[in-house]
Parts: sequence; structure tokens; C-alpha cells
Amino acid sequence: MKTFREDDLKNYCKKVMIASGVDAGCAQAVADCLLDADLTGVSSHGVSRFAIYIERLEKGLVSKGNNIRIERESPSAVVIDAGNSLGAPAAKYAMETCIRKAAETGCCFATVKHSNHFGTAAFYTKMAAAQGMIGFACTNLTCKVAPYGSAEPFMGTDPISVAVPSNDIPVVLDMTPTVVALGKLILAQKLGQSIPLGWALDREGRPTTDPAEGRKGSLIPIGGPKGSGMAIIVEILSGLLSGAGCGPELHDLYEFDAPQGVGHFLGAIDVGHFMELSAFQESVSSMAAQIRGLRKAEGFSEILLPGEGAARRAEANRQKGISVPDQVYEELVALGRPYGMVLE
Amino acid sequence: MKTFREDDLKNYCKKVMIASGVDAGCAQAVADCLLDADLTGVSSHGVSRFAIYIERLEKGLVSKGNNIRIERESPSAVVIDAGNSLGAPAAKYAMETCIRKAAETGCCFATVKHSNHFGTAAFYTKMAAAQGMIGFACTNLTCKVAPYGSAEPFMGTDPISVAVPSNDIPVVLDMTPTVVALGKLILAQKLGQSIPLGWALDREGRPTTDPAEGRKGSLIPIGGPKGSGMAIIVEILSGLLSGAGCGPELHDLYEFDAPQGVGHFLGAIDVGHFMELSAFQESVSSMAAQIRGLRKAEGFSEILLPGEGAARRAEANRQKGISVPDQVYEELVALGRPYGMVLE
Repeated sequence: MKTFREDDLKNYCKKVMIASGVDAGCAQAVADCLLDADLTGVSSHGVSRFAIYIERLEKGLVSKGNNIRIERESPSAVVIDAGNSLGAPAAKYAMETCIRKAAETGCCFATVKHSNHFGTAAFYTKMAAAQGMIGFACTNLTCKVAPYGSAEPFMGTDPISVAVPSNDIPVVLDMTPTVVALGKLILAQKLGQSIPLGWALDREGRPTTDPAEGRKGSLIPIGGPKGSGMAIIVEILSGLLSGAGCGPELHDLYEFDAPQGVGHFLGAIDVGHFMELSAFQESVSSMAAQIRGLRKAEGFSEILLPGEGAARRAEANRQKGISVPDQVYEELVALGRPYGMVLE
Repeated sequence: MKTFREDDLKNYCKKVMIASGVDAGCAQAVADCLLDADLTGVSSHGVSRFAIYIERLEKGLVSKGNNIRIERESPSAVVIDAGNSLGAPAAKYAMETCIRKAAETGCCFATVKHSNHFGTAAFYTKMAAAQGMIGFACTNLTCKVAPYGSAEPFMGTDPISVAVPSNDIPVVLDMTPTVVALGKLILAQKLGQSIPLGWALDREGRPTTDPAEGRKGSLIPIGGPKGSGMAIIVEILSGLLSGAGCGPELHDLYEFDAPQGVGHFLGAIDVGHFMELSAFQESVSSMAAQIRGLRKAEGFSEILLPGEGAARRAEANRQKGISVPDQVYEELVALGRPYGMVLE
């Protein structure tokens, strides 16, 4: 395990991408997004993903250029074609556009098609919260979740994020509509452990405690038909309203058969068009304080608002640096070697 | 059990409200909303609620007039003060305004404050879907759900609905972020049955199988911190962005101490600003057909899209009429008697 300052890791990733021919703005967006995930402790979406991003770029499955274009625009609606550019710059541009237009009209939503893995959804919604707006973001992904009543996966582990500005840290919800992430099954299988009933279904749609069977089957949505319905709505917003497609039309980040072709749906609601921003922020902070002050449930020493744990980890990691496991460190070093770049 | 045609029940409720002094437009909205719930089989939100609505109106806790006013307006944002009018006409007016404005700009969202119980959220989102738009609606309610880590309820069983137009019936998600509705605890207690672990916490925040203890405690959100976070976001959108308030500031439908003071958040996204409506509807219907055609999980004979069960029940109830339990029938009859009205 090695530890790095945020900026050192970010600059290294950015420079490697630029050296390999990636558009500078796109490289910046990806590096910002990866490091935000590492800072907030979501290391599954941090620099551990850098190698697969580079591999897809080098294989020509993701464009190195910035082909992101507005295809159609109304005062409060934007249709973006990412042209198979990297997901982070496409989603970042979509949110920037929504923020600019929401400031004029009150709110704006954007679809993005022909896109790629965009990292954490919270990265984009926090952009809106930083501008005094409520941010919304979701994306679709390849089939991992079975619709309620089915034995076959159709929806992805489609994340949904909402971020809300307050007087201090924003309230940031960032969740998949599944009981657990796929990573928990992969880890259990690696460790030879069984998984609790309720995490996954086997290929026949039966609850399973075998992580290998669960990986061949599907992840279980939260609340049965509720989480299933939420994932279907995300597929509609991200995949159909954008024209990106959904279900078997999408391709996996870790398979090299075709561009991913995923879609995103993002938006911003400008608080200032509804009420005085400072009064709203005050009311959010006051509600957060009330919630923190409630009686704790057995086994809890404190109550955290959505996003509060992530914000604390970011604060700690800014101080003590970001820890990178040896395997990820070796990957990063290898990616810079062809360009004579050193990670230190 | 008696059976009535939809229109007969609707007209009866409307006429009783008008006779008691309720504004005719408000009475129409409430009657439409109650009967839509009964038609779709959500009888908990149908005419079984008529008596409590009338009782609150007669006690002066809900205004009989239409005091619903736009307080502030931008091209894609509307701030509405319901002035303690009935919830249904306030939310219906908000959605109508969003639909009108979204047609111009691409999307529009509205907050509603000083409002009351608005029935089912799906009633409003289906209005948008009928106009070729994606509808969104949520509302806050009195404290019944504990934030993750707390032993005390703060959020309501805050429903969230999204409706999407297709070539045939719309896709309609309408869910609370809790594992079960409060009604299931009330019923179990009445029948002297225990409840499964996972439905409710007792007053100390411990999982309980005793429905009476669960009613004194709180309902469990789906997915732990996920459903808890969703309910907190609904409180922010419906309660804080509207200026309505949240948590202990709200009052219960079945207590007579004060107006409820709840808030709503509704919006419409006009598909036609993103892509050709007919192509979008075709893609939604095609996705629905793909999902219906997936292999069934053990124990399922078919896969239903969100809202499909409700649409089938509505079709059946239009044919065979709406069944009203004797107790509800007696209530309805008693409410018309002072005005010489007969339900038949």
C-alpha cells in the first residue's frame, strides 16, 4: 500500500492520458472524477478503474477525442451525443450546460447518448450543489439486475444521485437500486464465502447463498418491485429518452466487443428560482441537525446524513493522502512507463 | 359489500362536497383523485378516505375554498401556496401548470406549500404521461420513518411517483421508500398476528415482530440507508424547497390539532423536446415487451411492468364496478344524509 497526495495522482493520470493522445479537457474531467471517488473513499470508482479506461482507449473502443456535441436544445432541455467520448467529460459537460440553463429558467435536464462509464454519479450532482442548485444524475449499465418476477437480468446496477446544497456539506444521495453491489459477490467468491439470502438470485431466479451462482444470475433490487421499478425508470430516462438503448443493447466495461453505448440523464434545479438560497441552505442544515440529534438506534453511536460519511473521508484523505493498493500502484506505474512518466 | 359504477360514486362524492360548501373545482379534483385510486385497486386511498376529508373540512382544518395561488414563477419553475386548500386540487393545478410550461421550455417543476393529503402520487404523474410527458410527483407526510441509525421517526411514508408514456398503458412507478405501508401493521395488530422482522423497529430502534411495538416505533426503509436517504430527499424537495416544513412541523391526517401543512414537489419533462414522441413511446413499449418476454423466476407466471397491475385492475373495475365495503358504504351514506343525498 502506497500513499499519494490527491493532486499528484490526479496529475499523473491526466498526463498519462494526454501523452496517449486523449483530448486535454477530457483527460482533466476523467482525472477529476476518479480522484473525487478516491478522496470520498469510493475506491472502486477511483484510480483502480484507470487501467480499464486506458485499455479501452488503446483498443479504440472509446474515442480519445472530444466528440461531445449538443444535438438539440430548448430553454430547459438538452440532447447530447457523446460520440463515444469518455463518459466523465460527456456527463460533466451535460451538467455544466444544465447549470447554466437552469440559472435562466429554474431547471434544466439533459440526456447523453453514445457514452461510456462515467464514474460516480455523485461527482456530477455535487457540481450542481456547489452552484446552489439541486443536482440529479443517473446512468444505465449492462444487464445485472432482473426485473421483479424474472430470472434474467435486464437492468444495470443503475446508480441514482441527488445532491442538495446546505450551509456546510451538501446532502448527497448516491445509490444503486440493488441490495449490494456486484463487487460484494466477487469478493465473497474470491474468499470462498457464502452470501446471505437476499443479495442475489441464481439463473433460475431462485434466492442463492452461492456467490458464483449469483454472478451467473442477477442482483436483487431493494424492496422487490420497488427497486426493480426504480431501475426500469433509470433505463427509460438514461437509455430510451437519450436514444442510447438499454438491456442487451449495451456493452460491458470489461468486455472488448464493442463501445459500451450507455446513456446518462442529468439535471439541475436552481433553488434561487423557488426561494432565497440562503434560507433554503439554512433549512437543510437545520433539518440535518434535527436528524443528527434524534435518539440513536441500538448499535449506532451517531446518525449520518446521506453524503456525510463520504465528506468525512474526503477531509481525512486530503490530510493523510490517498492509499493505493500495491496491485493498483503497479498498474498505474505500468501505464506511465511507455511515456517515461514516473508516479511519485 | 356493495358495487357502484365509477361515475355514480364520483358524482356522489362531488355533490356532497359542493353541498357542504366546498369550491366546485376543488370537489371535482378530489372526487377524480379518490375514484382513480379505487379504480386502480388502491382502495386505501379511495372513497375510504372521504369521511376523514369531510371531517377535516367541517372542523375548519382544511379550507373549503380554492386559495391556490402561484406565488412566484420562472419559465421552468413554479412556487405555489395552496393556502390550506384540499391537497388534490393544489397538486393537480401544480401539475397542469408544469405541463403547460414544460411544453414551452422542455421541463418544469413546481413546489406546493400549506397543502393537505393529496391521495395517490400516481394520479398526478399520469396526467403528464397522458400529455406525452414524463411526470414526477412526491409529497411529505408526518413522521413515520426513522432515518438510518435512529430510533425515532422523522420522515413520512413519503410516496414517489414517475409516469412515462408508451404506445399503450404508461409505465407508472408509485412507491413509498418503506418495506411495507403502515396499514399492514394496523391489520396485523387487528388480527392478533405477528409481523416479519424487517418491517418495523420498536421505540428503541430494535427490529420487532410485534405490530403494536412497531406502530409506536417506526417503519423500516427499503435498503437501509438507501430508502432512508430517498425519504430525506423527498422531505427536502417537498418540505424545504417549498417552504412547507418537515418532520415534527407537519400534522397528521387523523389528528385534529392543526392543518397538516404538508408540501408537494411535482414536475413534467416534455419528451418532444428530447426526441420524437412517437419514437420514444415505441421504444418504451418495445422495452416493456422485452421485459415481459424474459424467463420467469420460480413462482411467477408473468412479469408486470410498474403500473401494469393497476391498469388491469382499472380495466376490470370499469367493467364490473367498484366494490365498497359495508363500513365505507355506511360512512358515505351518512355524509350525504344532511343534504338529502342518496347513494345508489
